[in-house]
Amino acid sequence: MTYFADIAPVTYEGPDSTNPLAFRHYNPEEVIMGKTMVEHLRFAVCYWHNFVWEGNDPFGGQTFERPWFPADTMALAKAKANAAFDMFRILGVPYYCFHDHDIRPEGASLSESNARLHDMADYFEDKMKSGPKLLWGTANMFSNRRYMSGASTNPDPDVFAYCASIVKNAMDVTHRLNGENYVLWGGREGYETLLNTDLSRELEQMGRFLSMVVDYKHKIGFKGTILIEPKPQEPTKHQYDYDVATVYGFLKRFGLENEVKVNIEQGHAILAGHSFEHELAMANALGIFGSIDMNRNDYQSGWDTDQFPNNAPEAALAYYEVLRGGGFTTGGTNFDAKLRRQSLDPEDLIAAHVGGMDICARGLKAAAKMLEDDALEAARRKRYAGWEDVDYLSPAATLDGIAAKAETHALDPQPVSGKQEMLENTVNRYV
Amino acid sequence: MTYFADIAPVTYEGPDSTNPLAFRHYNPEEVIMGKTMVEHLRFAVCYWHNFVWEGNDPFGGQTFERPWFPADTMALAKAKANAAFDMFRILGVPYYCFHDHDIRPEGASLSESNARLHDMADYFEDKMKSGPKLLWGTANMFSNRRYMSGASTNPDPDVFAYCASIVKNAMDVTHRLNGENYVLWGGREGYETLLNTDLSRELEQMGRFLSMVVDYKHKIGFKGTILIEPKPQEPTKHQYDYDVATVYGFLKRFGLENEVKVNIEQGHAILAGHSFEHELAMANALGIFGSIDMNRNDYQSGWDTDQFPNNAPEAALAYYEVLRGGGFTTGGTNFDAKLRRQSLDPEDLIAAHVGGMDICARGLKAAAKMLEDDALEAARRKRYAGWEDVDYLSPAATLDGIAAKAETHALDPQPVSGKQEMLENTVNRYV
Amino acid sequence: MTYFADIAPVTYEGPDSTNPLAFRHYNPEEVIMGKTMVEHLRFAVCYWHNFVWEGNDPFGGQTFERPWFPADTMALAKAKANAAFDMFRILGVPYYCFHDHDIRPEGASLSESNARLHDMADYFEDKMKSGPKLLWGTANMFSNRRYMSGASTNPDPDVFAYCASIVKNAMDVTHRLNGENYVLWGGREGYETLLNTDLSRELEQMGRFLSMVVDYKHKIGFKGTILIEPKPQEPTKHQYDYDVATVYGFLKRFGLENEVKVNIEQGHAILAGHSFEHELAMANALGIFGSIDMNRNDYQSGWDTDQFPNNAPEAALAYYEVLRGGGFTTGGTNFDAKLRRQSLDPEDLIAAHVGGMDICARGLKAAAKMLEDDALEAARRKRYAGWEDVDYLSPAATLDGIAAKAETHALDPQPVSGKQEMLENTVNRYV
Amino acid sequence: MTYFADIAPVTYEGPDSTNPLAFRHYNPEEVIMGKTMVEHLRFAVCYWHNFVWEGNDPFGGQTFERPWFPADTMALAKAKANAAFDMFRILGVPYYCFHDHDIRPEGASLSESNARLHDMADYFEDKMKSGPKLLWGTANMFSNRRYMSGASTNPDPDVFAYCASIVKNAMDVTHRLNGENYVLWGGREGYETLLNTDLSRELEQMGRFLSMVVDYKHKIGFKGTILIEPKPQEPTKHQYDYDVATVYGFLKRFGLENEVKVNIEQGHAILAGHSFEHELAMANALGIFGSIDMNRNDYQSGWDTDQFPNNAPEAALAYYEVLRGGGFTTGGTNFDAKLRRQSLDPEDLIAAHVGGMDICARGLKAAAKMLEDDALEAARRKRYAGWEDVDYLSPAATLDGIAAKAETHALDPQPVSGKQEMLENTVNRYV
Ligand SMILES: [Co+2]
Ligand SMILES: [Co+2]
Ligand SMILES: [Co+2]
Ligand SMILES: [Co+2]
Ligand SMILES: [Co+2]
Ligand SMILES: [Co+2]
Ligand SMILES: [Co+2]
Ligand SMILES: [Co+2]
Repeated sequence: MTYFADIAPVTYEGPDSTNPLAFRHYNPEEVIMGKTMVEHLRFAVCYWHNFVWEGNDPFGGQTFERPWFPADTMALAKAKANAAFDMFRILGVPYYCFHDHDIRPEGASLSESNARLHDMADYFEDKMKSGPKLLWGTANMFSNRRYMSGASTNPDPDVFAYCASIVKNAMDVTHRLNGENYVLWGGREGYETLLNTDLSRELEQMGRFLSMVVDYKHKIGFKGTILIEPKPQEPTKHQYDYDVATVYGFLKRFGLENEVKVNIEQGHAILAGHSFEHELAMANALGIFGSIDMNRNDYQSGWDTDQFPNNAPEAALAYYEVLRGGGFTTGGTNFDAKLRRQSLDPEDLIAAHVGGMDICARGLKAAAKMLEDDALEAARRKRYAGWEDVDYLSPAATLDGIAAKAETHALDPQPVSGKQEMLENTVNRYV
Repeated sequence: MTYFADIAPVTYEGPDSTNPLAFRHYNPEEVIMGKTMVEHLRFAVCYWHNFVWEGNDPFGGQTFERPWFPADTMALAKAKANAAFDMFRILGVPYYCFHDHDIRPEGASLSESNARLHDMADYFEDKMKSGPKLLWGTANMFSNRRYMSGASTNPDPDVFAYCASIVKNAMDVTHRLNGENYVLWGGREGYETLLNTDLSRELEQMGRFLSMVVDYKHKIGFKGTILIEPKPQEPTKHQYDYDVATVYGFLKRFGLENEVKVNIEQGHAILAGHSFEHELAMANALGIFGSIDMNRNDYQSGWDTDQFPNNAPEAALAYYEVLRGGGFTTGGTNFDAKLRRQSLDPEDLIAAHVGGMDICARGLKAAAKMLEDDALEAARRKRYAGWEDVDYLSPAATLDGIAAKAETHALDPQPVSGKQEMLENTVNRYV
Repeated sequence: MTYFADIAPVTYEGPDSTNPLAFRHYNPEEVIMGKTMVEHLRFAVCYWHNFVWEGNDPFGGQTFERPWFPADTMALAKAKANAAFDMFRILGVPYYCFHDHDIRPEGASLSESNARLHDMADYFEDKMKSGPKLLWGTANMFSNRRYMSGASTNPDPDVFAYCASIVKNAMDVTHRLNGENYVLWGGREGYETLLNTDLSRELEQMGRFLSMVVDYKHKIGFKGTILIEPKPQEPTKHQYDYDVATVYGFLKRFGLENEVKVNIEQGHAILAGHSFEHELAMANALGIFGSIDMNRNDYQSGWDTDQFPNNAPEAALAYYEVLRGGGFTTGGTNFDAKLRRQSLDPEDLIAAHVGGMDICARGLKAAAKMLEDDALEAARRKRYAGWEDVDYLSPAATLDGIAAKAETHALDPQPVSGKQEMLENTVNRYV
Repeated sequence: MTYFADIAPVTYEGPDSTNPLAFRHYNPEEVIMGKTMVEHLRFAVCYWHNFVWEGNDPFGGQTFERPWFPADTMALAKAKANAAFDMFRILGVPYYCFHDHDIRPEGASLSESNARLHDMADYFEDKMKSGPKLLWGTANMFSNRRYMSGASTNPDPDVFAYCASIVKNAMDVTHRLNGENYVLWGGREGYETLLNTDLSRELEQMGRFLSMVVDYKHKIGFKGTILIEPKPQEPTKHQYDYDVATVYGFLKRFGLENEVKVNIEQGHAILAGHSFEHELAMANALGIFGSIDMNRNDYQSGWDTDQFPNNAPEAALAYYEVLRGGGFTTGGTNFDAKLRRQSLDPEDLIAAHVGGMDICARGLKAAAKMLEDDALEAARRKRYAGWEDVDYLSPAATLDGIAAKAETHALDPQPVSGKQEMLENTVNRYV
């Protein structure tokens, strides 16, 4: 008898189903562009929002009543894991994700915390035999007060050292559980005020830390991808991994652009002033696309709302960029999404994921069709076709050389319609 | 008899003056930290907002009535120049800035436009004998409809070629007039919709163009600095030179990080979600700080308001970062600021600059005192002092090595107050 | 031979059509909930963005080349009208909208401007015999420099008087052309700085002006609705008709809440920090819903982008609120939308409207089905059902009386799930 | 021996003091415009952020270690009160503010919670003999999960009844302690999604509740002012008391505009898209100005940062509007401000208030001087002077009557400079 005892595994019933706990669009084994939907989407459920978060917000306390709360003993941690794997089973997802801190109670010492992590990993290893695989592991280095001034960017080198141990162990566990990626989200890697911050030094600390993470990955033979998850702010006023372009510059600076990729969250894109598809397209252009957190931000809220996706046209534009870039390799579609704190029931947890997965499925199908029909890409190729006839981008070209040509030919380039509305209409034929 | 005929040169009258056209804080020859204020601040006045802009906004037409409008003949362009240099003289500024398009009427052909530019440069050269120097020149590649889809990032290579000629000539003129910098602001280097945009190609085009600009600078022996001015959006939905960190990544990608620096505008920092001092500190940390556009954005407006600075504490924080980084070299303090469109009178133009210069002077003086008193820096050094005793940042350090140390020593780092409010109070002792 | 010469009237071809100039969802005579789509949606095309705007933005000039530009003679104004009515015919819309200033060239004097307005109204009257009806007329009191400091809120009473004449004549013409509403958008009714603004007086001026407008409506027997269009800012820093709730307070203050309703624009809702459906629901709750401007704002741009709608789920939520409130009476669905300035071709004008109308049609159909199926409303009724058993809202109820009851019964109310995600999933069954 | 044992009462030492725990500008008995600073500013310290909040943020737990945490017994609640009154004494503030929930541990039942509140009020009553007075009391109806879907706007009428008891008791206690105002902040009076919300009904519930609050005030003879504190959102997606103009409309609707005023917080103004001075000026224009919460929002953060004020020019503009409106009557300057969660030390609590009070003092002094010198007001009067000669605002004036006059006189009003920059410079002579 479990937390979700009376909820049957969710199955595909087709678009006409009115069963709130059935898939209407996500048909796992349906083949799209040569791959099944399960292979394309690579869905993952997150541990933290679903099983750890108690419903608190800045003005209110716990709303959820889960039998494993406060999960401060190993017994409760296992009860939590039982519920989690039960939900994974009901949803039929191929992957899940966790922070070290999500799965083990904090110990009285660093060593005890580490030991508990490994004990819980044993427990998970067993459950994973019949359950989902690990899309990525990560370490929570932002909740405890010791991280209040940063993790690897802390003014206190002891915190840096502490984090080395935390990340090493989280990587060890991720490796052991065959995680396909390891993620770093620097929630406290930023500042509250420049007045007490040595920006230059903190960036150096963060760069060095990441380099050591990459070295350690190779040392232990972890074949997964190291991912950074950009976010512009919150909890800190400014977070160093602001957005995809910022992370790219950081990686280039430390020579890590071929070692580290990005995990892009829709909500974080919005908070950074970008559309989700912008961040995806930028990551593809810069060669650092890795994985996605498919949770949206409310467009009118200035903080991270981490809501389940519910807009199919937006999902279509996102997967269009994913597919244009070749699709996921080690990455996948994680739901770093949380219920609204008023959604109290076990059924809400299931339904929210079902709805989110269906939106992604609709998005994927529309995106695939748009690619196959080639209407958008044909228009794009045509728009830039003139470049095939010139060599202005060759290393031999010079400013004055090209200028002379422009003057000699008395160039007077005439603008051509950008056709934005017609292209938007085209997209709307598919979504 | 000129446009400002009855306005006398502005002089320093001290803080108690109530003369609206006197400096109360900017005392050009006053020495601060070993340099005069004129040397520290290196004020420049911009040509475009003051002498070209007619007061239009998206919902209204011309409000200003300047005798040289519409400045579409060489005679009117010279009348405009006469007024401009008259204002420079009244304000006593050491520098000014211009776009090619500001100073010459567009010609019927590219060649005629270029020829007119050189003719106007002759006219300026003469005036500059007794007037201010050129802080920077730049080219307007965003107003004409030919640039509607981009300049160097245009889908049409003819536009790219046209821009090569435009920039080459603007650089030639800047070089001839002994400009100390050359600026590129990519107002149309971005996109309106991803649907018709080849992001990857456009970034390549822009990178190649900038590389050629740098090469051309060396070819002609221009000793000034090449500057990029970041802005996140407007006029386009997304602009590639989004903010300082983004520009840094772009420069690194094309190997230009030692060749190009940034011109940071307060208003653009705000639009990108940053404080001005953040962008300055980031540019210093990344080694690409160049110059500033000292015009603010209204905090409640989502478009570029380009207002004169009027908040002394904010100016102090900005100059604090400038001074901490060693101050300007070739850069300076430009006012890329425009009057409100209801400020119709010649006197408004003068008064707005006087007020802005005084705010900068107050900011500089406060910043210098804060640096000299060392209160902030002492606190900052102390906060990171623990790092002197560890070698975690050395290339030999490893994640597992440091982790082992943390575990062996059973580290349990205790947080220390960040003292933000006390530091803010400290700042308020100086402003 | 007209501007759209080779474009045939747009017809409904069904969802599988790939004809870019056909309706795939808008089937005018299709009956939904007892009314045809044409009756439900009451589409209107705006004159200004389509036929007056030249493609300018704050950093660039004209991009469009229409044969009637600059439309500064009566002959050109008529050529413009010919093109406009031709487009109305091609689209088959039942309504259009205009500002006085859109249709007549500004005269050398107020009287000449008025006279020209009436002359053009004659011309329109004739065209309307076989063309669309007038959804609403309005007056442009923001473009000319005389309005730079406000229209009815101007510090100069002569401007107030001038506006009286402008509005009187615009109302006369709207009345004559059987307009079904008259709209006021106060683009300059706001302030740039509080420092020179008498907020209290300006609100009085605006209230008095509106009262006189209402009186005049009755005097001439105009049966249409007076509408205010809220917008928070732009062009001014602050606009008095900020949002629906603000307009409601303003109307209450001047006793006009039964005389004036609101025309709500999606883009303005976004700029004010609200969702579109919020503004619609609020107007319904306050009893002042009138009409809609169905143009969206880009979620990442801080200025009024006035784009054609392209997101069907959003349109569904909007029409759901419209239908819940009983649908339009005198109001309708206006497109206060403009092409992107790169969309140069006549065909772009047509296609943009076709796409927008189809999105609205999809939204309407989904909204109607949701209402008919009652799933959302049943859940809503159930959630508040407890209120049927209490009389706490009766005038006789008192705080201490209810408090005593709560204490006596030792109330300990237990929260119930808000089911947000499940309701969002329900919506997604229809869109 | 208390929490602040070694910190001496803060005294005025003048602007040159470098003592971080001395006033440099706030000189309580200094007379400004005929009143002492203590009478003008009427400072209050809040109980919640200083003594209840544990340093949590959405991504992290407790950082503060106060000896009275978790304050879940009456003994700890009294220890907390001892620390609080000790801090009030050290700061020398004339007022403080509290929520019921701040001062008493939640009981096992409503009655026990109420009883504890009255017991703690006894304890406070005694302390207040030698301590500060109560500026306002309020009730926390947002933290407990029972309020998750609203307080008076809850779908469950039992919550409405529960709130009646809570507010009645909070008002009783406020009355007994001679509070000068009673505040309502509707943190949960709003919605997360329109899909499950009956907007119309919830507004009715809130209106009825407020009416009963006003009736109860009169019944018990409470002479203080009832205040609403506007905030646009957070914790909810939309909060009904969005901003001053919205609250005004709400009050008008329920006929309460002469009974209820507003408590305006700088941070909430910013979140609503307004400047602080806008909200103050609007409240004065609408006749509902009451009190202020003098805590700022970070301009780059989209959530409520509740920081101590630190910008003197901004404070000057705020107090200028307060003084223009006649100054406070029952209201005052509350600090609804919280330390950054990294500011761990007792001294940080004191220093933050000292800095905030000094900024207010500087603002007040500058504002008073600007008013006395009349420069801004003289310019404002002059700008609108033309209105003295016309009767357009009289009830007898008509649109067509004024229009006829405009046409007869062939009015052609010419714009006059708005002088914004010169007025901003004028302000800068005082700050
Ligand atoms: Co997030
Ligand atoms: Co995430
Ligand atoms: Co700018
Ligand atoms: Co600039
Ligand atoms: Co608009
Ligand atoms: Co509109
Ligand atoms: Co607040
Ligand atoms: Co407050």
